[in-house]
Amino acid sequence: MNPDITRERENATFDVEKLTHILDGGIEKTKRRREIESLVISDPDFQSEDLNFLSRSERYDAAVKKSAHMILKLREYGISDPEEIYCYKSVFRRHHHEALGLHFVMFLPTLYTQCNKQQLKKWVPLAESFKALGTYAQTELGHGTHLRGLETTATYDPATQEFVMNSPTITSIKWWPGGLGKTSNHAIVLAQLHTQGKCHGLQAFIVPLRSMNTHIPLPGVVVGDIGPKFGFDEVDNGYLKLENVRIPRDHMLMKYAKVEADGTYVKPPSAKLTYGTMVFIRSMIVGEAGHALAKSCTIAIRYSSVRHQSEIRPGEPEPQIMDYQTQQYKLFPLLATAYAYKFVGQYMNQVYLRITGDISQGDFSELPELHAMSAGLKAFTTWTASAGIEVCRMACGGHGYSRCSALPDIYVNFVPTCTYEGENTVMMLQTARFLIKSYRQASAGHQLSGIVSYLNESECRLQPQSVSSRPTVVNVNDLASLVEAYKLRAAKLVEMAAKSIQQELQKRVSQEDAWNNSAIDLVRASDAHCHYVVVKLFAAKLGEIGDTGVHSVLSTLALLYALQGIQQHSGDFLQTGLLSVPQLSQVSQRLKELLAQLRPNAVALVDAFDYRDEMLNSVLGRYDGNVYEHMFEWARRSPLNKTEVHESYHKYLKPLQAKL
Amino acid sequence: MNPDITRERENATFDVEKLTHILDGGIEKTKRRREIESLVISDPDFQSEDLNFLSRSERYDAAVKKSAHMILKLREYGISDPEEIYCYKSVFRRHHHEALGLHFVMFLPTLYTQCNKQQLKKWVPLAESFKALGTYAQTELGHGTHLRGLETTATYDPATQEFVMNSPTITSIKWWPGGLGKTSNHAIVLAQLHTQGKCHGLQAFIVPLRSMNTHIPLPGVVVGDIGPKFGFDEVDNGYLKLENVRIPRDHMLMKYAKVEADGTYVKPPSAKLTYGTMVFIRSMIVGEAGHALAKSCTIAIRYSSVRHQSEIRPGEPEPQIMDYQTQQYKLFPLLATAYAYKFVGQYMNQVYLRITGDISQGDFSELPELHAMSAGLKAFTTWTASAGIEVCRMACGGHGYSRCSALPDIYVNFVPTCTYEGENTVMMLQTARFLIKSYRQASAGHQLSGIVSYLNESECRLQPQSVSSRPTVVNVNDLASLVEAYKLRAAKLVEMAAKSIQQELQKRVSQEDAWNNSAIDLVRASDAHCHYVVVKLFAAKLGEIGDTGVHSVLSTLALLYALQGIQQHSGDFLQTGLLSVPQLSQVSQRLKELLAQLRPNAVALVDAFDYRDEMLNSVLGRYDGNVYEHMFEWARRSPLNKTEVHESYHKYLKPLQAKL
Repeated sequence: MNPDITRERENATFDVEKLTHILDGGIEKTKRRREIESLVISDPDFQSEDLNFLSRSERYDAAVKKSAHMILKLREYGISDPEEIYCYKSVFRRHHHEALGLHFVMFLPTLYTQCNKQQLKKWVPLAESFKALGTYAQTELGHGTHLRGLETTATYDPATQEFVMNSPTITSIKWWPGGLGKTSNHAIVLAQLHTQGKCHGLQAFIVPLRSMNTHIPLPGVVVGDIGPKFGFDEVDNGYLKLENVRIPRDHMLMKYAKVEADGTYVKPPSAKLTYGTMVFIRSMIVGEAGHALAKSCTIAIRYSSVRHQSEIRPGEPEPQIMDYQTQQYKLFPLLATAYAYKFVGQYMNQVYLRITGDISQGDFSELPELHAMSAGLKAFTTWTASAGIEVCRMACGGHGYSRCSALPDIYVNFVPTCTYEGENTVMMLQTARFLIKSYRQASAGHQLSGIVSYLNESECRLQPQSVSSRPTVVNVNDLASLVEAYKLRAAKLVEMAAKSIQQELQKRVSQEDAWNNSAIDLVRASDAHCHYVVVKLFAAKLGEIGDTGVHSVLSTLALLYALQGIQQHSGDFLQTGLLSVPQLSQVSQRLKELLAQLRPNAVALVDAFDYRDEMLNSVLGRYDGNVYEHMFEWARRSPLNKTEVHESYHKYLKPLQAKL
Repeated sequence: MNPDITRERENATFDVEKLTHILDGGIEKTKRRREIESLVISDPDFQSEDLNFLSRSERYDAAVKKSAHMILKLREYGISDPEEIYCYKSVFRRHHHEALGLHFVMFLPTLYTQCNKQQLKKWVPLAESFKALGTYAQTELGHGTHLRGLETTATYDPATQEFVMNSPTITSIKWWPGGLGKTSNHAIVLAQLHTQGKCHGLQAFIVPLRSMNTHIPLPGVVVGDIGPKFGFDEVDNGYLKLENVRIPRDHMLMKYAKVEADGTYVKPPSAKLTYGTMVFIRSMIVGEAGHALAKSCTIAIRYSSVRHQSEIRPGEPEPQIMDYQTQQYKLFPLLATAYAYKFVGQYMNQVYLRITGDISQGDFSELPELHAMSAGLKAFTTWTASAGIEVCRMACGGHGYSRCSALPDIYVNFVPTCTYEGENTVMMLQTARFLIKSYRQASAGHQLSGIVSYLNESECRLQPQSVSSRPTVVNVNDLASLVEAYKLRAAKLVEMAAKSIQQELQKRVSQEDAWNNSAIDLVRASDAHCHYVVVKLFAAKLGEIGDTGVHSVLSTLALLYALQGIQQHSGDFLQTGLLSVPQLSQVSQRLKELLAQLRPNAVALVDAFDYRDEMLNSVLGRYDGNVYEHMFEWARRSPLNKTEVHESYHKYLKPLQAKL
């Protein structure tokens, strides 16, 4: 054990294990998680060469191998609880993605929720036995977020009672679905339904892609891998071009909408039913943002405690780089953010479970709010976490660029969350739509409830003329007071966005153009709203924590999180009159004090995330801090070192020398 | 040609070709650049399979091949002007790096500047004929920025008149030098010189690494590749462990310091002479920041003009995504930044050439300022450019993740500039040191000249008590007035940082601790200073432009650059009393107007960068806008599509299905 990191752990002021239990949701959950982790880590079939040393084809191969092995193991161990499966997967996947991911996350759930009874009977056993390996094909080469723009067609032919599936244009080729390229033999394909001469919009169809015996693509199916990407090397994201592929009528998922034998289209009873999965996945992503940032902070903070560099005081030994104020200022606010997002993820998951409970009893009332909140929070957290991972990586200096740090992998495999499941700017505008609607309702005298109740006139509607003269009551040392400041900032920015739209309308532009011409303000308002929600939930979490030591350190983190956000957005707080110039100086001063205060607990705070070395897979983030010898050992295994002299010497350099 | 992009070009209000000449530095330079580009592009030996489809070993192989070919071609064409060589390289390298890069950039220049006469006679012919393939080995596994911390030793043995080179610890292993792993047979090694029982600090030594006949590592030389990284896939960054390697006395570079035959150490006459190269490379990096951002903007803006998505007005066709205000707000300020950095790079290069002219006449007076400026500007521009590349990439939605967009390559191969040639935070603090020193000189009544003259008491020292009552005179529509505002902001933040140090000192901490405890403020001051320099130089550049159309569009860009910076740092401008709250609303409004104003010129402005398709190597950034068909064509060539059925199906999936 590196003596520096040992000393760090000795200096901690709280019980790490207790904090781990809080993060897991209880001592029993910690225990069970560790059991599952040990199952994977001790399993020789999950060992493999470092993926960074493999070609893409080899990485895909390794991923398929692990997925197949996992399926057998989960059955063997009788693990079926979704949370436990998720835990199991996250150990062997490390920072990477699973080859059969979409089969589990999209193919199966869509079958469960959108098949009618007969379809369930046919497809679920096929899918659960992996005879049918499936994916979900929605986005097309020319179409992403805007579902109505999708061009793939399913035209009903009553003569044969079949749908004829087509990709009529280049832009209509299905593009991006995970597992579509090489793995899947079926896909749920979203296509425009045409029957009896009319288009009835998007429907989902089960399309067989490859022979279930030979895995060779079926006639009319042009399918393949879309090529290398930024991350996701082990996933065969694919393309699919359909050329007059005929599927039987009962391959349209018919739980809601239907096409009868003669081609009559029967409308679904409600359009709201598809909300749920989307909300669930976005909540998951918020939790993932917390994880990705927590892993990155673990690596950067442990490394910062064993890395020595330069000098603060002349003549003294080189200090740990964590002693530099600038290093603390890079890492500690991100550490606080990681905790914040983990707690927000927990909260959203709980709300989702509660609301879906309500839905099954028919109560949809909270769904629009959760839907709006999940969109914005997904964008807010993934943007900051992505940028934060890169800050952590660069805080490790040159070695952060080495693949052995794991930070490049964490980044490239997390950053796509900014785009998938709803492009972030679009997500922010979706939340803004809800905020503006709520604002208008409040302006019209309706009393709002829930998270947007701050938009109620009575609560805090700010009068523009009074902004500068309003007494400034924010106490920069009091978290509750800061939550209030974030709330007022959000209220003010929502109001400003609403006014921008109003001003545009006065120029006689259409509602839609007024919206687009105010989009910058709308995104800014959404961002402020999400920031308020995160600060509020972090503060609320503190109320649940009994242990004094843990409560104290988490309170420091929460205060740091809130104050750093104010410093970064100081313009907003000054502009809205919520803070004065002298208070801003206080904020800066207080921030520096909090950094110094957190310094002795930094390593313990990342230890509490409890990522085993085998999961972090980072030489820089090793628990024992013995970084350098393991970097050397890792490098020697690099493929370029297989031979002492690379063949390019004989091919190009020696001949060059001979010619000159 | 895609009709959307044709229409964009028709709508431009200025002469693209004229702007290209300005960027190149004159019509003749444009012509010559294009000639050189054509030489490379038409050369079949520079064609290769897309690097993204190759393994790392194959990529390294391809890079060595190209470097060897280049050397022969440059001789054949008689290209020897450094600027022209740089141009030639940047075409065939595309976004990647050259295998022999360090030989040219560090090995040869160090020989030229640090060899004595006899050494020049021996080594330069060897190096210029590539018999000696060299690199420059400075950083060690445990040591980066802080040169005094390096541990490699060179101990003089007068008995044999040799130096004995050693890597005494794990942390002393040389780590990172480009070309060290497999390519080089020599390295200039920085090591602590020990002679006659004393350590005389760092000296440079020429160490033979591999046999010049067989390329096999010499006895005592443990050398290899450090493994895969985030980017730089084609470069063999290496490690080097020296185990009692003996080199003759005349392998120490002896132009300045010397060791005589008996071991007597002779000090160098001046320590300042090594400044130059560092300043030069940092100036180059600022230009590279402009290039990397310009390439990214070219790709994202062209793609935004042909990509249609969602709807602004219901029922109308999907608009070009460039019509969304949020998209404009992402891309146009970055476009302005790319122009700004290109102009700053030009300026720094000119200043460098002028000052080195002065130095050769013995006038060092401007060097400290340029040195300080180059450090901060390198950090300032590489940070914003790196973040900006990712914004461009994500502005392309899902397709920005595809390697065929080239944006991942641009990012991973540019972002290391944030760390190499001086870690950015360290660079910012270096500039801060110069600013604080200047501030103190000004406070003591000295009259400053040059870029920091704004710190002179008489010019604009702000009195803290008068900040809020000072009349606000900034005109948000006038660039000169905004330059002034940036200047006053910088002055104020330098003052605040100086006061923070003062306050710390009053707490009786040491100078060094006071500095570290104020580091956040110091970086912020440096940042404000660099921002001022960039805005000022952009504004100054406008004065050189005669053509009305070009002047008009560049003025709009410069104004956008200045105002967006103010919006992003509105807290600073409010805090220092330079802007009022109503003015900030004006800034927001004006920004939106500028985005709309730039919209018709966006494609023309990226066309003016004049990157040929063969150099951009981006399907999304194609000049003709025909994106989708070429994505499909590219994907079909992906290695995973070499077979219809991947072997993993037979190895894992079929057996799995059989077991369930």
